[in-house]
Amino acid sequence: MTTDHIVKSFDEELNMLNDTIARMGGLVEAQLADSIQALTRRDAELAARVVSQDKRIDDLEHDIDSLSVRLLALRQPMAEDLRLVIVALKVSADLERIGDYAKNVAKRTGALAGSVPLDPVHTIRRMSALVMGMIKTVLDSYMEQDLDKARDVIVRDEEVDALHTSLFRELLTYMMEDARNITPCTHLLFIAKNIERVGDHATNIAENVEFLVSGTLPPGDRPKGDESSIVIVEPRTADTEGSE
Amino acid sequence: MTTDHIVKSFDEELNMLNDTIARMGGLVEAQLADSIQALTRRDAELAARVVSQDKRIDDLEHDIDSLSVRLLALRQPMAEDLRLVIVALKVSADLERIGDYAKNVAKRTGALAGSVPLDPVHTIRRMSALVMGMIKTVLDSYMEQDLDKARDVIVRDEEVDALHTSLFRELLTYMMEDARNITPCTHLLFIAKNIERVGDHATNIAENVEFLVSGTLPPGDRPKGDESSIVIVEPRTADTEGSE
Repeated sequence: MTTDHIVKSFDEELNMLNDTIARMGGLVEAQLADSIQALTRRDAELAARVVSQDKRIDDLEHDIDSLSVRLLALRQPMAEDLRLVIVALKVSADLERIGDYAKNVAKRTGALAGSVPLDPVHTIRRMSALVMGMIKTVLDSYMEQDLDKARDVIVRDEEVDALHTSLFRELLTYMMEDARNITPCTHLLFIAKNIERVGDHATNIAENVEFLVSGTLPPGDRPKGDESSIVIVEPRTADTEGSE
Repeated sequence: MTTDHIVKSFDEELNMLNDTIARMGGLVEAQLADSIQALTRRDAELAARVVSQDKRIDDLEHDIDSLSVRLLALRQPMAEDLRLVIVALKVSADLERIGDYAKNVAKRTGALAGSVPLDPVHTIRRMSALVMGMIKTVLDSYMEQDLDKARDVIVRDEEVDALHTSLFRELLTYMMEDARNITPCTHLLFIAKNIERVGDHATNIAENVEFLVSGTLPPGDRPKGDESSIVIVEPRTADTEGSE
């Protein structure tokens, strides 16, 4: 494990911290991409691999936490070095959660028994492409300490939220049209919510990059664009024959 | 704001950190209790108050982050003092998320148009009572640095996960029996998931108490008891007449 290495200098330890986050970020990107591919191809084998790989992400978070605690204890970093360590602790927690969401998408793929409406899966792929782009950009912004890229990620999250809200409505309609859609569409609802949450965590990371560069902590609150919590869809008729 | 106070000693700053976490914890407990009461009574006014109060929790997290960063920068704490500050950063993030879940429960209460099956709401109340007990115990374990209480919380989370999995199955069945249940039961599915996640965050805090007391970082991975991601429920019949 990273933290077992014998380290010569403070800069080397900081670099190791950044390298570990870069490796964790790359793994999280791959896990998310694989989980969406497993979903679209209904590939149970790939889904199982995503589930089993999640432990590697958890281990990297543990490495980053250990390394950060050791840096704080032994090096007592100041100013920007201190912010680097604090942000590393926060970013690794966000990446770990994104990994959990990818794992959950893979798990639910197995529960999509029978036929699944294809349009929602297509929309989920579009949402995933957006959030994967956000993750890539926010990791670049972290490594390059690039404020513009970080702020771009925060803006892009609104599009993800809007897609999620309309998909939520669409999935409820499918469920009302045919009760056989209820189990698969419920899992698609949670899969879509997972992807929407990944966008939120990419945004958290972007806010921490702002703190890293500017020294100003992100505000506790952030306007959320996801309106799915207040969506109401009524069946066409009292029973559920209103199909088409 | 807490962090505006002029502080005399290091101990006073550490006490202020603990007091702020205690206040944040108390507010989070109250928000969760109110959100569940708003749900069970369908009290839109109380739900709106929970949504508006969430900002206070976000502000307290911001206070704790600022205070922790300042403590690390100016006091360069060692050993247990350092762990106190690191754990404060992590615990405040978990409490902020619990606050978000309470807010989301309140938001969805407004979308429970028409009649809602009462049994699932009753089960959600039982789940909530369990997680509110976990939050109370884990906050005590943090303040008293009591390992036994922390470990007790980790064990109790399994019961929450089991309740959630059976509730998930029950809600799918209601949706299949009557399409008019689909919108409200979908929001109940997410409300139940929120409560289940609150249990996970209480468990995270318990693991950080273990780190605080023992100095050993929690393992990245933890066995999850929530099986709802793999639940499959089939309609009684091809169409959805199979009512009652």
